[in-house]
Amino acid sequence: MAATVAVDNLNPKVLKCEYAVRGEIVIHAQRLQEQLKTQPGSLPFDEILYCNIGNPQSLGQQPVTFFREVLALCDHPDLLQREEIKTLFSADSISRAKQILAMIPGRATGAYSHSQGIKGLRDAIASGIASRDGFPANADDIFLTDGASPGVHLMMQLLIRNEKDGILVPIPQYPLYSASIALHGGALVPYYLNESTGWGLETSDVKKQLEDARSRGINVRALVVINPGNPTGQVLAEENQYDIVKFCKNEGLVLLADEVYQENIYVDNKKFHSFKKIVRSLGYGEEDLPLVSYQSVSKGYYGECGKRGGYFEITGFSAPVREQIYKIASVNLCSNITGQILASLVMNPPKASDESYASYKAEKDGILASLARRAKALEHAFNKLEGITCNEAEGAMYVFPQICLPQKAIEAAKAANKAPDAFYALRLLESTGIVVVPGSGFGQVPGTWHFRCTILPQEDKIPAVISRFTVFHEAFMSEYRD
Amino acid sequence: MAATVAVDNLNPKVLKCEYAVRGEIVIHAQRLQEQLKTQPGSLPFDEILYCNIGNPQSLGQQPVTFFREVLALCDHPDLLQREEIKTLFSADSISRAKQILAMIPGRATGAYSHSQGIKGLRDAIASGIASRDGFPANADDIFLTDGASPGVHLMMQLLIRNEKDGILVPIPQYPLYSASIALHGGALVPYYLNESTGWGLETSDVKKQLEDARSRGINVRALVVINPGNPTGQVLAEENQYDIVKFCKNEGLVLLADEVYQENIYVDNKKFHSFKKIVRSLGYGEEDLPLVSYQSVSKGYYGECGKRGGYFEITGFSAPVREQIYKIASVNLCSNITGQILASLVMNPPKASDESYASYKAEKDGILASLARRAKALEHAFNKLEGITCNEAEGAMYVFPQICLPQKAIEAAKAANKAPDAFYALRLLESTGIVVVPGSGFGQVPGTWHFRCTILPQEDKIPAVISRFTVFHEAFMSEYRD
Repeated sequence: MAATVAVDNLNPKVLKCEYAVRGEIVIHAQRLQEQLKTQPGSLPFDEILYCNIGNPQSLGQQPVTFFREVLALCDHPDLLQREEIKTLFSADSISRAKQILAMIPGRATGAYSHSQGIKGLRDAIASGIASRDGFPANADDIFLTDGASPGVHLMMQLLIRNEKDGILVPIPQYPLYSASIALHGGALVPYYLNESTGWGLETSDVKKQLEDARSRGINVRALVVINPGNPTGQVLAEENQYDIVKFCKNEGLVLLADEVYQENIYVDNKKFHSFKKIVRSLGYGEEDLPLVSYQSVSKGYYGECGKRGGYFEITGFSAPVREQIYKIASVNLCSNITGQILASLVMNPPKASDESYASYKAEKDGILASLARRAKALEHAFNKLEGITCNEAEGAMYVFPQICLPQKAIEAAKAANKAPDAFYALRLLESTGIVVVPGSGFGQVPGTWHFRCTILPQEDKIPAVISRFTVFHEAFMSEYRD
Repeated sequence: MAATVAVDNLNPKVLKCEYAVRGEIVIHAQRLQEQLKTQPGSLPFDEILYCNIGNPQSLGQQPVTFFREVLALCDHPDLLQREEIKTLFSADSISRAKQILAMIPGRATGAYSHSQGIKGLRDAIASGIASRDGFPANADDIFLTDGASPGVHLMMQLLIRNEKDGILVPIPQYPLYSASIALHGGALVPYYLNESTGWGLETSDVKKQLEDARSRGINVRALVVINPGNPTGQVLAEENQYDIVKFCKNEGLVLLADEVYQENIYVDNKKFHSFKKIVRSLGYGEEDLPLVSYQSVSKGYYGECGKRGGYFEITGFSAPVREQIYKIASVNLCSNITGQILASLVMNPPKASDESYASYKAEKDGILASLARRAKALEHAFNKLEGITCNEAEGAMYVFPQICLPQKAIEAAKAANKAPDAFYALRLLESTGIVVVPGSGFGQVPGTWHFRCTILPQEDKIPAVISRFTVFHEAFMSEYRD
């Protein structure tokens, strides 16, 4: 009889893959949450606060009303024939829903679409990109996806032939990249962001890592840039982006630009510039540089993670390569239509002349201003704690403080068979109910320790988060002080 | 400079993958559709009829009202606070939406859920499975997915280590299986369904193919069964299912049961029995057989393809293996919440005491009865054509007729560098606008030729489909008659 299924006969690439954002600590948190339900009062806190993942609505952020109005009408188009909706929905949500339904053959929001997504929605997204960048965009370059992740997997699947194909990835990185490279059997080629310059990306370091990888026989195929940064929260300077683009062109690398936090910028001296805009500003055309830009409905001020909408835009790929991309997309038929519609909405929100504009703008500005205040408050609070230094969160949804752990804590972690930062995060969880992700899940300079904490708890909870954290940290440091 | 991206430096597994359901003929059809828009009257037909894919709503099938009411309310929960909804929504859609929102932490339909899907929805699905099968089901065994396809990919990714790992797949098959096996670098081990016994699945043939593969050093890991069949439309007899289950247990194979057409049965003498029920009826428990059962919101009478909802249920896997499955699911965070909600609804539709029940039942019965009539009409029509024989479509959404092509047509196809059935399908498209998929996209006994045609055109269009098809076929046969 053949061997049945056991861990030792599974695909070793699966075994190798790690994904800390939903790893051991989160599974432990879910257990504690169950315990709170079945045995209330049995733990030193009364709720679990999930600061491990950029999931705003799970922590109380409200959806943008206009977006949800349009989705509801598209989900149940019969409503559009009823008079009563005029008191329930804004006039522009009604007209937008009608406009979207008219783009869909047979108004069928329950049908599979074109494998790249509904053409009219891609046109709308292309027009949103064009007005963002000031350079034209083309619906044929856009592939709608269930969130950004499937598009990342698709490109890894396309580019990685074997363990000699390498992808340059920032360290610290969002672990989707390491997980996807592991699942597809490639080599992760790390380049380090410079913590002392606010997580700066130095192309000289990238070049060094590239040459080192090449000297080991690695065929480096692509460079991943996450801007604004995850977990690091920095926003790249425009000059820096020009360098990166020139570097990719000179070295023949695909540029994979994770731009899902493009709306999440909290400082006045930085702006988001898409890599597409940078490429076009340099006068580069289709022959010069293969570029993939990722966007998602999960982030921004909208934070619609559960809708699983997103897209990637490809430029600089030849027709035969694009056919292969199309083929992989078509094996999965299409992304979900609700997510497709939402992606078109976030790239084309209400305009000043629309009925919803005032409330839309108030919701958007309110969320972004509050996120900026929360980022600032957490950064300040962490910087006050013994042994913790925290760079400014210029963007994205995270702070990524460094903790200088006492030797005794490092030894206690070793004894517990944990990475020191995982040991810290686990103790934090057990004392406070706050879930953060240890820096080892993202990668960090060896011998340094960090954690990623989202800035997403609702603003009225931030003082309590800070005080719970502070009490824990002081006790932890007292316990282990060398 | 490193090589840039070209077809010859892409992952060869991607190049090898084929997916005919959205392949060359469909791409050609999309071009013709554009031509009809830009140059009306330039083709011998005025619309493209997509019979290539099980996509009911694209051909005019209306969604089930109750499902869409619940989705709209969950998409825009603020509606639940308004009086006006009482005239717009059924009472049970309102109470169901409230019930679902209460299951979701913070009522946040815009948040990522648990990686397996929202627990309360999985409980509801488990209860639907239990009442379908008469055996208990467990929410922890259920993984909600964006349609059934991602769950198939996940299991292939888990099981396939290299080209020596094989998966038994029926021929003809739904090409997701061959595509997924190719993408993951495994070996497809074909077993043939017997066309002369109505596409019967004979375990003696499966055994022969298994032994043959083993003798070639292939480690066969799993058996795929599609019931009701795609593209073949047969419904397995219960006795046959017992044999298959015993066979998998004896041979140490994972049973991958594609049961997405479980509601699509059109004959009185056949019933759907889930493999889970068969396994439990045999008294087999968790130790005996690893089984994965796939379900989707895209098929059935609901046909909600665009919502990308589905799940797989796993039983008979050890805890460490389940942890690996969970890990892969978690890398993609979660499936879309709208699809998750819909999956819970199709497994728990309105009950006799609910306000919506009468209209729900009328819609469901109307769709299924019409599909049965359409299946019958197409089967009869095809059987009348020279050289065509068509088995009864007992279930699913397809007929898969065999065409005995004249030698001259086969030679003309060869000259055009096409498979003969692809040549036929292309000519059909160019003459009639009807899109079918050549049998070579699904696999068939060498030297035989088939095509798959959905039974999904709206009933009032079926006579025209038949007459267009008949006129084309007669002309084709006259042109190439030996």
